[in-house]
Amino acid sequence: MAVPETSRLSLNTATVRERWTLAQAIEGCARHGLGGISPWRDKVAELGLGEAARRIRDAGLAVTGLCRGGLFPASDAAGRAAAIADNRRAIEEAAVLGARCLVLVAGGLPAGSRDIAGARAMVGDGIAAILPDARAAGVALAIEPLHPMYAADRACVNTLDQALDLCDALGPGVGVAVDVYHTWWDPNLARAIARAGAERILAFHICDWLVPTTDLLLDRGMMGDGVIDIRAIRGLVEAAGYTGLHEVEIFSAGNWWKRDPDEVVAICKERHRAVC
Amino acid sequence: MAVPETSRLSLNTATVRERWTLAQAIEGCARHGLGGISPWRDKVAELGLGEAARRIRDAGLAVTGLCRGGLFPASDAAGRAAAIADNRRAIEEAAVLGARCLVLVAGGLPAGSRDIAGARAMVGDGIAAILPDARAAGVALAIEPLHPMYAADRACVNTLDQALDLCDALGPGVGVAVDVYHTWWDPNLARAIARAGAERILAFHICDWLVPTTDLLLDRGMMGDGVIDIRAIRGLVEAAGYTGLHEVEIFSAGNWWKRDPDEVVAICKERHRAVC
Repeated sequence: MAVPETSRLSLNTATVRERWTLAQAIEGCARHGLGGISPWRDKVAELGLGEAARRIRDAGLAVTGLCRGGLFPASDAAGRAAAIADNRRAIEEAAVLGARCLVLVAGGLPAGSRDIAGARAMVGDGIAAILPDARAAGVALAIEPLHPMYAADRACVNTLDQALDLCDALGPGVGVAVDVYHTWWDPNLARAIARAGAERILAFHICDWLVPTTDLLLDRGMMGDGVIDIRAIRGLVEAAGYTGLHEVEIFSAGNWWKRDPDEVVAICKERHRAVC
Repeated sequence: MAVPETSRLSLNTATVRERWTLAQAIEGCARHGLGGISPWRDKVAELGLGEAARRIRDAGLAVTGLCRGGLFPASDAAGRAAAIADNRRAIEEAAVLGARCLVLVAGGLPAGSRDIAGARAMVGDGIAAILPDARAAGVALAIEPLHPMYAADRACVNTLDQALDLCDALGPGVGVAVDVYHTWWDPNLARAIARAGAERILAFHICDWLVPTTDLLLDRGMMGDGVIDIRAIRGLVEAAGYTGLHEVEIFSAGNWWKRDPDEVVAICKERHRAVC
């Protein structure tokens, strides 16, 4: 497989969240020659939605996704309605930003619940409720299956096949975000990526799984520092027809979040060429 | 569903490993009225295999499993051969103990490897190599799929369906151990348990998934303290025809391992009746 151009690289701003504002991240991505950026909503709000959209456009960056919508399950109807209302705002923001997709993290179990099937039903109902808004706004919804270790507290959608079953049930306008960190272990990964196909793979996220992993949430690795065969998975998504960017998203409280973001981005570029 | 009798409860000795020898665990299980025990090989070696077998038999306890075989992947042929030789010894030990099964934890990636498909092939090859020995000894092999968060460093068999695919390929003499901790998140769990059926469900392990979980390995919860609907999963395995014991296995460096094992077993009994 060909070494990827840096213009295929996108920076999820979570990777530099501790030391760069969104304005700095936009400027940094452009200066380093990256092709895209994926901002988080809190950072967008901080800079102002219109200003963020203008700066990203002026920098010539694609918006590979807006992070994030979802989090649908709640203990009562009011909580579920509040989540749906917040997702509608996120759709509007994604439209203004021209985002390739709104990333949906399903949400975990409501407090005190042991009913994962019930939570999963709430996710399907929640996406169904916002889908007309998304279609009207021209915003694609990307269900991101998260690693099963987040099933309880973050996302009860845990495999690509499960996300695709939801897509099948919901119809056009919903696809998936394929993140190597969340999916690399899946014995059915190759088949599931082929099943997804070009139209439904809306984003491709990269980082690495460290051995040992010392924290369930904040110990992701830089590409090449772990055990994931990222290039092989890129091969699978490209064989399925995906032509979009490769979005690096590293949650790393103990290491990468502490470093100079310019160094982090420079290393992302090197590793992207070397192992992705 | 009926409240389970304490005679249906088995103690995996890992639950009390820091404060009880195997001899103490055998005596404790009998005194508390449990129906079984599942020892680890290091504890068996410490007491002596014949002595362990005699004491367990005299205590009237079933051996719901011997922990553990497996760990097949290795960087070179010598390493793989050593694993197979060690598994053959484990089969002999399981036969002497009259264990219901030898629990197989697949093993993770060899050092430096990113080839999870290759590791998975080594697991299949390894089990195939020891299966004639297991059949000859009358020892059932129980593949235990571990949670996907252990795919890199402990077990590259991560779903019940993946384990059952291995069983299908290997033929009679191989089944599965269903552990609620490793499988509760699986969107396909109900179908996979039904697929396994009575003959292939060789063990049923219980504990709970805590929120938050602060360590990937050593922060399992007592039944009832987490988010797993254990009784519902017991219902699935019993609907599939499983009539065996419920083996409690809690790795908990920060909590249960520090407590008086008599207190731990007493709470296991209470929770077994209350939520399992």
